[in-house]
Amino acid sequence: MSGARRIAVGVDLGGTTIKSLAVDDTGRVVARASRPTEVHAGQAQVVRNLAAVVQELTAQLGPLLSSGALAGAEIVKAVGVGVPGVLEVERGLVIASPNFPGWEGFPLRERLEAAIGRPVVIENDANAAAVGEQWLGAAVGLKDFLFITIGTGVGGGVVLGGRLWRGPGGRAGEFGHVKVVAEGGELCGCGSRGCLERYANAAALERYALEELPKGGASALRALALDRPEAIDPAVIAQAARTGDAAAQAAYHRFAVYLGMGIAGVVNLLDLRHFILGGGVSEAFDLFSPWLREEVAARIYGVAINDIHILKARCGNEAGALGMVHLALAAS
Amino acid sequence: MSGARRIAVGVDLGGTTIKSLAVDDTGRVVARASRPTEVHAGQAQVVRNLAAVVQELTAQLGPLLSSGALAGAEIVKAVGVGVPGVLEVERGLVIASPNFPGWEGFPLRERLEAAIGRPVVIENDANAAAVGEQWLGAAVGLKDFLFITIGTGVGGGVVLGGRLWRGPGGRAGEFGHVKVVAEGGELCGCGSRGCLERYANAAALERYALEELPKGGASALRALALDRPEAIDPAVIAQAARTGDAAAQAAYHRFAVYLGMGIAGVVNLLDLRHFILGGGVSEAFDLFSPWLREEVAARIYGVAINDIHILKARCGNEAGALGMVHLALAAS
Repeated sequence: MSGARRIAVGVDLGGTTIKSLAVDDTGRVVARASRPTEVHAGQAQVVRNLAAVVQELTAQLGPLLSSGALAGAEIVKAVGVGVPGVLEVERGLVIASPNFPGWEGFPLRERLEAAIGRPVVIENDANAAAVGEQWLGAAVGLKDFLFITIGTGVGGGVVLGGRLWRGPGGRAGEFGHVKVVAEGGELCGCGSRGCLERYANAAALERYALEELPKGGASALRALALDRPEAIDPAVIAQAARTGDAAAQAAYHRFAVYLGMGIAGVVNLLDLRHFILGGGVSEAFDLFSPWLREEVAARIYGVAINDIHILKARCGNEAGALGMVHLALAAS
Repeated sequence: MSGARRIAVGVDLGGTTIKSLAVDDTGRVVARASRPTEVHAGQAQVVRNLAAVVQELTAQLGPLLSSGALAGAEIVKAVGVGVPGVLEVERGLVIASPNFPGWEGFPLRERLEAAIGRPVVIENDANAAAVGEQWLGAAVGLKDFLFITIGTGVGGGVVLGGRLWRGPGGRAGEFGHVKVVAEGGELCGCGSRGCLERYANAAALERYALEELPKGGASALRALALDRPEAIDPAVIAQAARTGDAAAQAAYHRFAVYLGMGIAGVVNLLDLRHFILGGGVSEAFDLFSPWLREEVAARIYGVAINDIHILKARCGNEAGALGMVHLALAAS
């Protein structure tokens, strides 16, 4: 079958939903499947749900492979699963994951391999998204970059010399837990304080908007916040910022100061020149990008801001699953 | 001459003094030479002084090579020069160096090669020290680590996969310019604000000691500060801390909080497990190490503090020149 079209399954294990893709080796998605994660039902049930998603996807592929566009294609054995949190990739363990309480030390790879009878590759979800962007998105052709995902949390994936940098223990990439406040910082989900994640995630953006509102005059955002403060979310803030709302813009500015501080530190430490921003908050990339560049420019040492490229990710919320497909293809 | 003992010259270009070593390939120092840098006299004079040091060292080697212990040894052609500041190593340029004002863009390698008629290898001085420690010091056998030098400035050298990580532009390693304060931070020599260097260098330690003094009771340090505040330097603070002086100990504690914040960020980003601390302030390693570990422990995510090794450097202030010898040997 050498030279034949190859198809792999990539899975994104989210806190709420398991999403999966079957993708060919040119990056074309040929099938999709998803189902609830059911974290509350325990590890065994989550593993069963993962197995069911993989089975459903494989079942979808059956008819496609026996006729039509995919005739003659090969489904590779390995399945890739992106997992939020800190993993020990080499041993296939979950080390720490706020969305999966009690999973510390859980041998996810081994359990899933037993359930599906196929080899499994696991990887941190942000690392997986970095690989996805490198394969098919904003990082195509880049050898050295930091992928940053900004949503409920802030994740990162470091690519050095063309390859994912996992570090000696396979746990690298936690850009969201670089520290930006020395003393008395906000408590983070990781148990520490002062992590970038607490100052540059969706909740921080909402907090900044609510704090900035009293400073300005009347605005749509202000009216909404008085009525229903819980309705202030990144999408609402983005919409307000686009219509010129001062509080919404100030919120993005404060957000950009912290994110820029983190990025500048990585420029100075590793001389990285490319940063790819994904995740829900990055949908509003154009709204905060000017302040972000301004902040990075003020804080880099010996490098010109024109040599720093901060780009919006292109693979959207499928970057992680696409990256896992790529890793599964590479492992097969 | 294959298999013969090889000797190389390594130079440490300091803001005040040029120090150089001739070292054999087993790490044994066979000759030393130094002279003033004379930065004020301009680039051409500094290049002449560098050339003179190399010549003096080579002259010392002559008689040793024709008889005695070094008979039959070969002096390799390349000379290694460690330079403080940001360099563009591939092109041999100085990019930014607070100790060498006006040197931005100066083609140091080319000028020195013309002056001595030998190939020259340049490298950032902290990167050079990282190589020195890896060759002969605390980092022997380590593949992944961060070397940190703490003195007037804070420098760094990142070693990944066994090799110095220079980054795509050859400027990596500026750990001192990782950011630890988001807004209104102390102005740094690099032109930015909030750099770790301003919170964890010798001057910061002195500042903390002077700030802590009024909080405590009578102490030797307090008496000295009242009399001659300018006499408060890291050596005096270290001595006071050893005798139990509360202000001196509090100064080390504050220093350790910032340094620990920076180190924890690197653990979380790159999963590095080994940190080697050099430079003058690190002479008092035992005085701040417990607080440093405490701070790092509180701020790492998914990694146990027992897996983090923070070690005192072993090559002292010759680490940089030794590293340049190693790089010169590798380049020859």
